[in-house]
Amino acid sequence: MRKLRMGMIGGGQGSFIGEVHRIAARLDGHIDLVCGAFSSTPERSLESGRALHIQENRCYANFEEMIEKEKNLPSTERMDFVAIVTPNHMHFSPAKLALQNGFHVVCDKPLTLTLEEAFSLERIVNSSGLLFVLTHNYPSSPMIQQARAMVLEGEFGQIRKVVVQYLQGWLSTALENTGQKQAAWRVDPSKSGIGGALGDIGTHAHNLVEFTTGLKIVELAADLGKFGKNRVLDDDGNVLIRLENGAKGSLSFSQIALGEENNLAISVYGDKGSFTWRQENPNELVTRWLDKPKTIYTPNGVSTSSIASSFSRIPAGHPEGYLEAFANIYKNFAIHLNEYLDGKMNGPANYPGIKEGVRGMQFIYACVNSSENNSDWKKI
Amino acid sequence: MRKLRMGMIGGGQGSFIGEVHRIAARLDGHIDLVCGAFSSTPERSLESGRALHIQENRCYANFEEMIEKEKNLPSTERMDFVAIVTPNHMHFSPAKLALQNGFHVVCDKPLTLTLEEAFSLERIVNSSGLLFVLTHNYPSSPMIQQARAMVLEGEFGQIRKVVVQYLQGWLSTALENTGQKQAAWRVDPSKSGIGGALGDIGTHAHNLVEFTTGLKIVELAADLGKFGKNRVLDDDGNVLIRLENGAKGSLSFSQIALGEENNLAISVYGDKGSFTWRQENPNELVTRWLDKPKTIYTPNGVSTSSIASSFSRIPAGHPEGYLEAFANIYKNFAIHLNEYLDGKMNGPANYPGIKEGVRGMQFIYACVNSSENNSDWKKI
Amino acid sequence: MRKLRMGMIGGGQGSFIGEVHRIAARLDGHIDLVCGAFSSTPERSLESGRALHIQENRCYANFEEMIEKEKNLPSTERMDFVAIVTPNHMHFSPAKLALQNGFHVVCDKPLTLTLEEAFSLERIVNSSGLLFVLTHNYPSSPMIQQARAMVLEGEFGQIRKVVVQYLQGWLSTALENTGQKQAAWRVDPSKSGIGGALGDIGTHAHNLVEFTTGLKIVELAADLGKFGKNRVLDDDGNVLIRLENGAKGSLSFSQIALGEENNLAISVYGDKGSFTWRQENPNELVTRWLDKPKTIYTPNGVSTSSIASSFSRIPAGHPEGYLEAFANIYKNFAIHLNEYLDGKMNGPANYPGIKEGVRGMQFIYACVNSSENNSDWKKI
Amino acid sequence: MRKLRMGMIGGGQGSFIGEVHRIAARLDGHIDLVCGAFSSTPERSLESGRALHIQENRCYANFEEMIEKEKNLPSTERMDFVAIVTPNHMHFSPAKLALQNGFHVVCDKPLTLTLEEAFSLERIVNSSGLLFVLTHNYPSSPMIQQARAMVLEGEFGQIRKVVVQYLQGWLSTALENTGQKQAAWRVDPSKSGIGGALGDIGTHAHNLVEFTTGLKIVELAADLGKFGKNRVLDDDGNVLIRLENGAKGSLSFSQIALGEENNLAISVYGDKGSFTWRQENPNELVTRWLDKPKTIYTPNGVSTSSIASSFSRIPAGHPEGYLEAFANIYKNFAIHLNEYLDGKMNGPANYPGIKEGVRGMQFIYACVNSSENNSDWKKI
Repeated sequence: MRKLRMGMIGGGQGSFIGEVHRIAARLDGHIDLVCGAFSSTPERSLESGRALHIQENRCYANFEEMIEKEKNLPSTERMDFVAIVTPNHMHFSPAKLALQNGFHVVCDKPLTLTLEEAFSLERIVNSSGLLFVLTHNYPSSPMIQQARAMVLEGEFGQIRKVVVQYLQGWLSTALENTGQKQAAWRVDPSKSGIGGALGDIGTHAHNLVEFTTGLKIVELAADLGKFGKNRVLDDDGNVLIRLENGAKGSLSFSQIALGEENNLAISVYGDKGSFTWRQENPNELVTRWLDKPKTIYTPNGVSTSSIASSFSRIPAGHPEGYLEAFANIYKNFAIHLNEYLDGKMNGPANYPGIKEGVRGMQFIYACVNSSENNSDWKKI
Repeated sequence: MRKLRMGMIGGGQGSFIGEVHRIAARLDGHIDLVCGAFSSTPERSLESGRALHIQENRCYANFEEMIEKEKNLPSTERMDFVAIVTPNHMHFSPAKLALQNGFHVVCDKPLTLTLEEAFSLERIVNSSGLLFVLTHNYPSSPMIQQARAMVLEGEFGQIRKVVVQYLQGWLSTALENTGQKQAAWRVDPSKSGIGGALGDIGTHAHNLVEFTTGLKIVELAADLGKFGKNRVLDDDGNVLIRLENGAKGSLSFSQIALGEENNLAISVYGDKGSFTWRQENPNELVTRWLDKPKTIYTPNGVSTSSIASSFSRIPAGHPEGYLEAFANIYKNFAIHLNEYLDGKMNGPANYPGIKEGVRGMQFIYACVNSSENNSDWKKI
Repeated sequence: MRKLRMGMIGGGQGSFIGEVHRIAARLDGHIDLVCGAFSSTPERSLESGRALHIQENRCYANFEEMIEKEKNLPSTERMDFVAIVTPNHMHFSPAKLALQNGFHVVCDKPLTLTLEEAFSLERIVNSSGLLFVLTHNYPSSPMIQQARAMVLEGEFGQIRKVVVQYLQGWLSTALENTGQKQAAWRVDPSKSGIGGALGDIGTHAHNLVEFTTGLKIVELAADLGKFGKNRVLDDDGNVLIRLENGAKGSLSFSQIALGEENNLAISVYGDKGSFTWRQENPNELVTRWLDKPKTIYTPNGVSTSSIASSFSRIPAGHPEGYLEAFANIYKNFAIHLNEYLDGKMNGPANYPGIKEGVRGMQFIYACVNSSENNSDWKKI
Repeated sequence: MRKLRMGMIGGGQGSFIGEVHRIAARLDGHIDLVCGAFSSTPERSLESGRALHIQENRCYANFEEMIEKEKNLPSTERMDFVAIVTPNHMHFSPAKLALQNGFHVVCDKPLTLTLEEAFSLERIVNSSGLLFVLTHNYPSSPMIQQARAMVLEGEFGQIRKVVVQYLQGWLSTALENTGQKQAAWRVDPSKSGIGGALGDIGTHAHNLVEFTTGLKIVELAADLGKFGKNRVLDDDGNVLIRLENGAKGSLSFSQIALGEENNLAISVYGDKGSFTWRQENPNELVTRWLDKPKTIYTPNGVSTSSIASSFSRIPAGHPEGYLEAFANIYKNFAIHLNEYLDGKMNGPANYPGIKEGVRGMQFIYACVNSSENNSDWKKI
């Protein structure tokens, strides 16, 4: 397996998600960060790059320069792919340019600023024949893999009910007015798009429902809230959902759920069994059954499926968390890209991609549309 | 404090809730069960009464006989109040007759079969001047009292969001076809009314929201489900809720959430703090704060309020549960009724009554109405 | 089943355990408290009795008077048994007198003040042919019954290791100097005997090990601590234990484990499986296995044994706690005593008795002896 | 900050801890693995190195060759330090040779095969002036840092009691006879030394007690068990401990605690407060207090100390685990080594070193000595 070269767009000093991507890319030793356009000014990009041990001549002023110059490097040096870790309004243009110049793309979620951009990017990805990764990280948690594998094997039977929540409290106060950059762009529709908390974390909840159940949410009725003073985007929402097989459920998200840290939790109920997973203690999958007592699966624990184990690095009882799940995306992408470069791809990607990205944008638009129409049911 | 005499309507052998009421009434030693119309036949009523050490001549064939005969006993022997523990369709008539004959009433929830009966019973209670208890038991759990006290003192600030669920799985299969009596009447609209799981447990969730927040749910949009084959009543539901102060939330209930035992849980978020309580481990109240770490209150634990302690009987760390909470209703009713009999009532009842009963019926009707109208918002 | 009549010795106003015994006796409706010698003065005994709705002429000045006078009542009125809920130094004499006068005895733990008294009482009980109950309550918790049943059926295989702890923090400060009566007598050797926390809660841990494993602790090495200023009795201890089959373990108890409420927890490891039970959330039994994932049993839950279910009153998910477990002792004693009175006893008692009482005293003496001899191993 | 170059001794294919060290070293991007003597044969070392993207000429046949050849490389290419990740019997020689040739050392625990080697290595380290890291990873968990900081600031008062356990079940069966390499060397005294589970995990428990309390264990009485058939080393142990300030405690460890995965847990009780930490859910620190309710600290959560936050990489609620704690050692070593190379060291190391290594060996020897002498108290 060859080592891959990554160029990063965004993720300069002060970024949260940029460092997450770098740790995730580093963790398994198959990816080197070789260049970047880390910030909006050349000086800050250079400063960020130096701290990351990047050669100065590969710390670029902007993504256009990076793509142009890297393209002209010899293939043994040139970056293999870009990682886009900017706010939402800066996903589409760099992704498009990278793909048009032959670079594979890893992109943070939600996919784009607008649904139109999402459809456009989908066409570009599909016609490019290149790999595209959307970093919904929670599906790469071992116990979510375990849950999905059990659902797909029919262990829980026909799915009937889903209860999912993603609750945070960090925007309970007007953090956006304090100079906190993470807060500032998330409440700004020109950078976030039409969804606030909805786009930032509601999409994770949506993605997790569809990933674990293997079923699409086909219809929803949403009631979005704007509790922070002067906010124009939602910071809270409650959504009724219906799945393609007739299952029903409720989805709740918030960034004003004061005191909640990162409380993503999902429960799925079938007619043979059910499961619950909680992100804040991700190394347990609680399952319940008609004819036997509640059973707890753990990563690499007794009876855990081999697919779940392939998303875990260390023995049972040694907790892995957010970063390891994120790194699983990069690891699986690295394997997949190696296969691509070798011309021998073994089956489909086991990480989220452009399709999941478009679904997420459709979810955002359906929620906003429903909420603006008095919570009428809207199809996705 | 005098000892009080209770007559029971329903609760014969095979009843679940009848024995719960009896344990609850016995627990603190202030109430004696002296008579009953326990079953639909005189023979079974007698048999049940004997097992309960009731005098044979006070094991009545039906509630009409019981009320008639007890009324004619000397006041030193006569029952003081009736406890109605029958299915929903048998709440209104015995309650009405008891009140009309001067007996106080303890009644299981939901209040009545229909909303019309509820309004009618409200008028009867109010004009009678007698005490009326509705046994929503969860408010009498010490940590729910703690939560409510903290809300009312403003510790959590302005309430913004509520997430409540009441999930059971016991009707995941067609238990009603197996001869199980609890299941049979609950899926039968002639005995349950227009709500299935909605009336049985959805009303507990509704009651808990209004009790803990001190706020009314003023509007809701419901999506009820009927997953069990041939069921005519709901066995599942998801509801968007709006509270009178502008708070929003989601309420989910189910009796087909396979594997769930009695998973009632509520989280309430204000702009200064928040709390979570889970019925299955009721002796913890998790609170979260802007400026201090997560804090766990326990019954009789450090800093627990005196009101919460008055709902607890033993030192911290000695778990109390469902029966103790239920017994708190009877204990507080016994104190209140003593005050009533002494002609010196100290403040309002600290147990649910007719008002909560009517609210619950309104909640059921609003949910059904909304669900039948494609989840349109309906006012309560 | 006839109703039984109980007389109480001790348990006047301000007592903790007296009220626990009364609630436990009342809960299932088979026992009436008919008389008592509740306090050390006739006036306070009378006052306590009145609050308990006891006839004034059956509120006795002391236990001698009670036994004498009750004995002379007609057999249809006379108490059937006494419940002794006094401090340890007041167990032996009333138990002896009651037995000698034909009354069955329920006695709080530890059995007596001294080991000599324990042996003496054992002889008296055995020669009396009467029933004797020692209220170690934790074995009557449904999930402890489940654990024991599984051990005895060999599901966990050969037991190898036990880790048990009983940690409280209520004597972290010099509570005994504040007038708190519970604390005062427990630190006083003339009332407690030679064990402090050891006798009060260490004996519960010891009893739970022997009950759940069905194995005797045959040898121990103890290191007792006296952390409270001027205390003459232990308030903390750590003990190495060896079981009769070669299993080893550690037992730790404390009343200066600041902040702990009533943290009794036991883990038992065999060569086929293991279990953990925690008193503060008693409605879960965690089990672990060689060849299947961790499994959680609950009272009346799926696959719970019928024996465990017979110690539970309400459906799964409805938490029962300390009082219900305590009441199980009284319930099972009431059934047993009915059988005794009918002359048809079906099998042995399913509650602790004199043998467990003597074992507990031997445990106390072995610990003190070991600790005074530099933690040398001592046999029990 | 310059990037550092690491050479690895051991850690070839099939190694568990080798990959852990590599992930830990990579995670923050300050360390490159540049060479290694990964296995006992040149061929397997080469194969392992290739999979790790190491230049073939720097995949060495053994550690002697590696140290010799690296020493002769230019200083801009030469490795800066070695990481020793071999079984215990192969710690001393490579550490000694590396230090004698000017290379800093990172070494897995326990320090050496024998206590004599430990003292000898301590002298070598001290006289070398080079940096030495012992990878006890648990102290680098954020919530352990939080606990220690609170202890040192006196928040819990005078420490009185410690209860610590490290329970695993993976050696419940004779795994060593199945070809499993991790098991095989751990039960072999020629590779493990005189401690089995004692050396492997008992030392972690010992280290955690001394790290969190800032107090030395000065005396212990141990009862070691050998439950696996034909085992010559302990696979289980229970230990009474006494700390230098008079505190007492119990320490239990096992590798035959069937079903336990990696259950390391510590509770420390002072006269003002107490804490509990559980490794399997490491992102919570439970604290308890005299005058306020139980409080839960989380990494980067409200009120968490800045020192704890410096051991965490992502916001509150995003779980970090075993690998992140391990990586903290490498990160802090990288910072420290940079300071060393710059000649400006800011304060002492914030990772374990040679002193902790010698303490651990003394603990092993004291336990074995005590256990062989019928659990007599032995001083460390």
